[in-house]
Amino acid sequence: MLGVDPGLTRCGLGAVTVTGGRVVRIVDVGVATSSPDEPVERRLLAIADAIEAWLDRLRPDAVAVERVFAQSNVSTVTGTAQVAGLAMVAATRRGIPVGLHTPSEVKAAVTGNGRAGKEQVTTMVTRVLALAEAPRPADAADALALAICHAWRTGPISGAAAAAAAAGGVRAASDAGTGAGSPGGSSLTAAQEAWRGAEASARRSGRRVAPARPTVGR
Amino acid sequence: MLGVDPGLTRCGLGAVTVTGGRVVRIVDVGVATSSPDEPVERRLLAIADAIEAWLDRLRPDAVAVERVFAQSNVSTVTGTAQVAGLAMVAATRRGIPVGLHTPSEVKAAVTGNGRAGKEQVTTMVTRVLALAEAPRPADAADALALAICHAWRTGPISGAAAAAAAAGGVRAASDAGTGAGSPGGSSLTAAQEAWRGAEASARRSGRRVAPARPTVGR
Repeated sequence: MLGVDPGLTRCGLGAVTVTGGRVVRIVDVGVATSSPDEPVERRLLAIADAIEAWLDRLRPDAVAVERVFAQSNVSTVTGTAQVAGLAMVAATRRGIPVGLHTPSEVKAAVTGNGRAGKEQVTTMVTRVLALAEAPRPADAADALALAICHAWRTGPISGAAAAAAAAGGVRAASDAGTGAGSPGGSSLTAAQEAWRGAEASARRSGRRVAPARPTVGR
Repeated sequence: MLGVDPGLTRCGLGAVTVTGGRVVRIVDVGVATSSPDEPVERRLLAIADAIEAWLDRLRPDAVAVERVFAQSNVSTVTGTAQVAGLAMVAATRRGIPVGLHTPSEVKAAVTGNGRAGKEQVTTMVTRVLALAEAPRPADAADALALAICHAWRTGPISGAAAAAAAAGGVRAASDAGTGAGSPGGSSLTAAQEAWRGAEASARRSGRRVAPARPTVGR
């Protein structure tokens, strides 16, 4: 599962695997970059080459790309849309299914809140994947969040399985207890509901290990 | 010289050659299409495949692509930007230089008026290329206009050469006289100034041959 956070200056790339218990583990993460001093066609080619190299190296079973809306962030949306398109075509040419997710969907999947901030997304990605340190820059963390979102939203999933996965991931990250707990709102999916519990657990343990950094608050 | 009028539903493709006298002649014109019923990644791939087939078949010395602005036509700009990006990368991968032109630049180049309507652009493209009938749909004509615009804006050009080219093209299209005449405004390039004269000439002959269709008026 490869997540692509499209961008012309920085394009986040994050790959995860999902085990039977739906615990996600990191495979690789990085950022493809291009220089604003270059002509746009050379920048697009550099990013496309990087995406294709990742596809050929990792051979992911799916590619999750951020769904780009023309309304958002007008100054960069053209380049963002173009990189998203290049990623979609590169994947489809290789027979790899493409999933599109809005930023809200991704935030809701990994934090339980569709309007979560970037720092909160990074924090939860770090915990879910049991990383020793947070992926930087935010584009890298966002790419992993896209991959996690896609993994959790596709395929058969039960609330119990999601809870087990969430708890397992969080346990590895923070040695927290099981993620059962605080039920989510009625608009959440089973996975999101389960995740809310895991998040609450992670927040508690997060405060314990890093009291000065309340980045997981809703 | 291949012009690409990017679009997800219809992508115009128009190729021209430029002779020493800067007279432009048509090589081929067409439209690549994709169905709105298909997933966006399959649509993008279909258009990308078509663009690449044209590049491999015609081996143009340059590709002119419409410069996409996020501000314009919000509902379709994402797909338009994506197709433009695919065209740019396909050309650059083949070592073919890319030129970007705004719709205003294209309209100014072929009609002398940066705010000309689509019908006026089609009419002038038809005349400049001496076509028996107007290219349809408008995307096809716009792609030819992009190619003509790029041909006229690149390379060494003198006012006299541009006038000769314009007059030659128009003469073939409408059997009009030489295009010398009405000087343009001070903000026009030499080519645009020359073209203004040619346009005026074409308009006169256009009225003569098709009095009921005053599509070339400014």
